[in-house]
Amino acid sequence: MRLSPLDIAGVGVDLPEPVDVRALATAQGAPVDGYRGWISACHGGAGDHPSSMGVRALERALADARVSAAELRLVLFCGASRDYPPSWSVSTEIMRLAGASDHCLGLDTSAGCLATLTGLDLAHGWLALHGGGHAAVVAAERWSHTIDHGDPASSALWSYGDGAAAAVVALDAGAAGRLRFLGAEFRSRSAYNGYVRIEYGGTRAPVAPAGVDPHRRRVVGRSRDEVIAAYREGYAAAYAALRARFPAEPTHLVCNQISPGVVGTISSELDLEDRTTVTGHETGHLGGPDVLVGLRRYLDEEHDDQAVVLAASASYAFGTGLLVADRSREPRPPHGPPSVEPAGTRKGVTP
Amino acid sequence: MRLSPLDIAGVGVDLPEPVDVRALATAQGAPVDGYRGWISACHGGAGDHPSSMGVRALERALADARVSAAELRLVLFCGASRDYPPSWSVSTEIMRLAGASDHCLGLDTSAGCLATLTGLDLAHGWLALHGGGHAAVVAAERWSHTIDHGDPASSALWSYGDGAAAAVVALDAGAAGRLRFLGAEFRSRSAYNGYVRIEYGGTRAPVAPAGVDPHRRRVVGRSRDEVIAAYREGYAAAYAALRARFPAEPTHLVCNQISPGVVGTISSELDLEDRTTVTGHETGHLGGPDVLVGLRRYLDEEHDDQAVVLAASASYAFGTGLLVADRSREPRPPHGPPSVEPAGTRKGVTP
Repeated sequence: MRLSPLDIAGVGVDLPEPVDVRALATAQGAPVDGYRGWISACHGGAGDHPSSMGVRALERALADARVSAAELRLVLFCGASRDYPPSWSVSTEIMRLAGASDHCLGLDTSAGCLATLTGLDLAHGWLALHGGGHAAVVAAERWSHTIDHGDPASSALWSYGDGAAAAVVALDAGAAGRLRFLGAEFRSRSAYNGYVRIEYGGTRAPVAPAGVDPHRRRVVGRSRDEVIAAYREGYAAAYAALRARFPAEPTHLVCNQISPGVVGTISSELDLEDRTTVTGHETGHLGGPDVLVGLRRYLDEEHDDQAVVLAASASYAFGTGLLVADRSREPRPPHGPPSVEPAGTRKGVTP
Repeated sequence: MRLSPLDIAGVGVDLPEPVDVRALATAQGAPVDGYRGWISACHGGAGDHPSSMGVRALERALADARVSAAELRLVLFCGASRDYPPSWSVSTEIMRLAGASDHCLGLDTSAGCLATLTGLDLAHGWLALHGGGHAAVVAAERWSHTIDHGDPASSALWSYGDGAAAAVVALDAGAAGRLRFLGAEFRSRSAYNGYVRIEYGGTRAPVAPAGVDPHRRRVVGRSRDEVIAAYREGYAAAYAALRARFPAEPTHLVCNQISPGVVGTISSELDLEDRTTVTGHETGHLGGPDVLVGLRRYLDEEHDDQAVVLAASASYAFGTGLLVADRSREPRPPHGPPSVEPAGTRKGVTP
């Protein structure tokens, strides 16, 4: 089967104001001397929910792509947080708010912070089956309220940030886009499912005991060394599979995972240590949105790499995806005035 | 792009014991004289959770397909209920329990009761991108505890049942299978998102007020006539798109939606009123699993249709998928001894 690459037609982000992570922990009585995480994290306000942040990011991505919401055939939501539990649909709510048509389908997908990369892959396959056209991959998290900033054992999670990012993608649709997604490869470590876990609210423990915050997210039962080894092995295997599948030679990495240390591990494993776009110190760890917030910055910075890797993971699965420059297309004027309203940012990632 | 159909290599189900829906409502003081729903519904026991029921269904589907868990490259979970909230992964837990390899990826997807049909479509596209092989579509719900059987306004939901079903599918993998999935078409009605809703547990209303069951699922704010009209229009449009895309003439329908009345509406809209496999009166409305529980029964009954429609929906999206018989393959001996352990059933859907 021959298949066209997936055009990245537009990318948009929506980020609440960042807070100072160490100040927040200090205010709650936790020691911060040994803290090595992202120093800021966007925290959502009263109106910032997965659907509301998601639709703002999508509208910016549509403007960036010069595509209308009515042209979308598929909206994939790729976040772990939700306005309401299923079967209520975040993606369908984003469709409704954006003005998508009844010919568009909304699907919610979840794979921790890996879901945006799997979303690009799923959108690619779905458009191929359905004759091409435009789709949107929308990631949003509002999860900073699930983190206990007073608990030193949760310090690895203190920098979880809220925000949204969206990509409008196109297959065989003549869409504008400087980069094209060739594909992605993944490796799992199913025994590590639950390394970061919310205990209550599912079928096994529906209701928290009195006095316990039902939404608290905790790190459970693995040493840091074990986890880092799993990340190294997972990323190395996923990347080896990606390199075996595609001949391009990547010269840049877009990656923002749970901490600077983990990003360092990943970028050294992929041998792209000094060529990595990271957004964590301004935004915190946004989960699904990270890889698209980074891609928005990469595009704004007008790099000229031939091939770029997107790297993302959950604790139980690791993925690398490959983007290549489309030299057949007219480049935008470098550093010229933006042709659409700013594609990003209430705050945070303007270069 | 030319693409092979997706082989349905095996189907398995796992169903807890059914309860008498009217007796349950009566015991809780609700009147049942006007009740027109499914008369039984499977209710899960202490050990029945999305992952545990899901892996039992998957193991039966693998045995039916004569495929090992190690051969799976993708596991899509397609339920609305979960053992634990994300980023914990139901699909990855099912992979772990089944013994899938690190080369397999787990993704959780959600689109109400439509997600199993969208799962077949997503698996088809994903396998096409990744060079073919085997995948699993696993649907499970444990949601009967979210229904208030004492509330007459919730009577449309009284027959929500718990259970799981799985399909092992294959692309260009030489897998056995009497039916092949050609594709599916969908139509949305995004304004109807939230017609059935759990109010608490998302970012908008994280915690229920004191004394309110946080998991209660309710029907909200639409007349029955409005909803039936939306179903008619949604299914008619999705089916017209399916018929336009594929030339086969369907002669059978597999469908089990929220009530006998809704299934009647759908089957008459598709002109397959007396040729429909329905499982509701024995199982209740299982959500995502319905379409595969029906398919298991259809296969067990040894029909010989050339083309079969799968129909499923959420209140906000409607889908029809097309299966065709593969006449090039050796049929199993009709009514002979089963070649694997029973593919279904602790109870309920043996024909």
